Amino acid sequence: MDTADPAAPQRVVLYAEDDPLILANGRALAPVQVAYETYGELDAERANAVFLCHALTGSAHAAAPDGWWRTLVGPGLAVDTERFFVICPNLLGGCSGTTGPSSTDPATGSAYGLDFPPLAVTDLVAVHRRLLVHLEIDTLHAAIGGSLGGMQVLQWLLDAPGQIARAAIVAASSRLSAQNIAFSAATRHAILSDPAFHSGAYALYSTRPSRGLSTARRVGHITYLAQESMDARFARPAEPDPAPAADAREWLSSRYPVETYLDHQAETFLARFDALSYLWLSRVMDGFDPFAAPIAQTSSASAPAALNPAPLDPRARALVLSFSSDWRFGADHSRRIAEGLRERGAEHVTEVEIESALGHDSFLLEVPGYQDTIARLLDD
Amino acid sequence: MDTADPAAPQRVVLYAEDDPLILANGRALAPVQVAYETYGELDAERANAVFLCHALTGSAHAAAPDGWWRTLVGPGLAVDTERFFVICPNLLGGCSGTTGPSSTDPATGSAYGLDFPPLAVTDLVAVHRRLLVHLEIDTLHAAIGGSLGGMQVLQWLLDAPGQIARAAIVAASSRLSAQNIAFSAATRHAILSDPAFHSGAYALYSTRPSRGLSTARRVGHITYLAQESMDARFARPAEPDPAPAADAREWLSSRYPVETYLDHQAETFLARFDALSYLWLSRVMDGFDPFAAPIAQTSSASAPAALNPAPLDPRARALVLSFSSDWRFGADHSRRIAEGLRERGAEHVTEVEIESALGHDSFLLEVPGYQDTIARLLDD
Repeated sequence: MDTADPAAPQRVVLYAEDDPLILANGRALAPVQVAYETYGELDAERANAVFLCHALTGSAHAAAPDGWWRTLVGPGLAVDTERFFVICPNLLGGCSGTTGPSSTDPATGSAYGLDFPPLAVTDLVAVHRRLLVHLEIDTLHAAIGGSLGGMQVLQWLLDAPGQIARAAIVAASSRLSAQNIAFSAATRHAILSDPAFHSGAYALYSTRPSRGLSTARRVGHITYLAQESMDARFARPAEPDPAPAADAREWLSSRYPVETYLDHQAETFLARFDALSYLWLSRVMDGFDPFAAPIAQTSSASAPAALNPAPLDPRARALVLSFSSDWRFGADHSRRIAEGLRERGAEHVTEVEIESALGHDSFLLEVPGYQDTIARLLDD
Repeated sequence: MDTADPAAPQRVVLYAEDDPLILANGRALAPVQVAYETYGELDAERANAVFLCHALTGSAHAAAPDGWWRTLVGPGLAVDTERFFVICPNLLGGCSGTTGPSSTDPATGSAYGLDFPPLAVTDLVAVHRRLLVHLEIDTLHAAIGGSLGGMQVLQWLLDAPGQIARAAIVAASSRLSAQNIAFSAATRHAILSDPAFHSGAYALYSTRPSRGLSTARRVGHITYLAQESMDARFARPAEPDPAPAADAREWLSSRYPVETYLDHQAETFLARFDALSYLWLSRVMDGFDPFAAPIAQTSSASAPAALNPAPLDPRARALVLSFSSDWRFGADHSRRIAEGLRERGAEHVTEVEIESALGHDSFLLEVPGYQDTIARLLDD
């Protein structure tokens, strides 16, 4: 349903029950509703569309003044909404208007929970492409994504050669490290082991695994920041506590600046995010490995795309961008993405490492050189 | 009580109810029992004692063939038990025989829980020093500790100048970074928010906050390893999963090598460690900041030691050792320790960074150059 409230995303059912989404694992999913926002106007040639793919905990609400990518997207910004028609959907598996594991299962009338199918990045991309069909747009001036969003852009290049003219893959990875997966597993353990998780059926109990999700957010958030900037931002008093706590309840409660910051982060996160979506989207990232598939020697329309990707469109321009202090998906991850793209025939791949002390979260922030680099890609 | 079983530690009550331990925060604690092991023979001059301080989750059982420091301590090893009289106690606040928050509170007959007093590293050191009195040993040939163990050795140098002739402070810190404290806070949140924690009184309910402690161990353990060696050790299959999971229960369960490793680590940890001790000892580390105190201009016997430390004995030899891939307490932490010691009058401080890909856990492992460096300190 469309709505007159400009702050609310539009919603469209892209796959009805007689036309389900067939996932990479073979399962069918319907209905699939997508919530999306658009900014700016589509030009007469339908050629100025820029597609934004969001990260693990994003939403359709991207642009300035108050969206998650307000440093990059808006009037007069690098992704100039006075020039481009910008599309940003909430992704499949999410919890901000698009179908996900806490949506209602038509077979039961209750939330799917653990009956929701496993997903892969290629499934997220399939839904993005269906949204383009709905919007009657064939090709994109650009697709831009950070972190899990960058993974979607990368997968899209492989799944639909020629559809994206300019791709910005920011602070992303083509294959998680063992440490990445370990953090992911620890955060999922916190959620899955919360008694309020109720095997995923917590909606039936009118509860939520808030304790587990809150622990998960704390751990995840630490990996989004950088050690150095954390020290600068959450400085401890130089002098020791003049009166050491005598009671353990006081002593164990948050007393350092970084603790109260994490408390606040976790609290605001609980208000906007769903534990099942967290499980799903973090697991999607763990399994992402698009270059593990052998390079196709001959194009075969009948082979599954994930196992036998078509060569890339050599004309596509791909920017693979990382930040110097990102210890989650740093320059080593970007290098592997760039190498994989070149091996598959891409001829215009640019790797850029931006100096930033702000860690993985840099992709959301104002960082000298970053926004300009994206702007240049869009002008190229 | 002493015991004839050589594998069991000795136990001694060092502070009885008529002679309580007065803590840095002013509270009194009694009884304080200490479990400790010794290896080798004390020489006639009582001058060959080497004291081992253990880390967050250690115990009194240090030496080869099966102790936690079996790479360093044993017959013919760097800390040669045929030459030295080696003492290793379980520390105050622990859960392996020494009084801690799960010990019985004589006031109630039940476990202390959150009524156990907050501790500081200086309290742990006070108990070590009382153990030396019990053993009739005045000075130590050496004191050696890793991580929280190294913090105890550092505090000891400040609290009792002249008692330690040679100090090895390994993979330690004089002041946790904001990231260190953030991880610590996240793991404590997992324990404190587990419904089975029961405000610390879980023993009364015949249960344990195993889910929270298990999450805490997973997160903590990741910080003990290094990214590079994790990738080498927990390599993922190069090819994508030929049959993507169709059921979410299977998909979300451990499927990558690093996940099953963390599962195993958490399981064995639960069998040997207590959640309250985890809270206490991690919080002790958060608050450690011995160099925050102003340097004493004049010695004053009446000033509290923590606020007005005596100058160091300039003759003491201090080795401050770090490992190249330790992103928890790396060379930057060791440098601050060495600088602080020199500022306080130490004249024989050596900083060594050992090349190792194994992260913070290197201090427990066989690493080229590490054991030899400790051996040289003991010969010096």
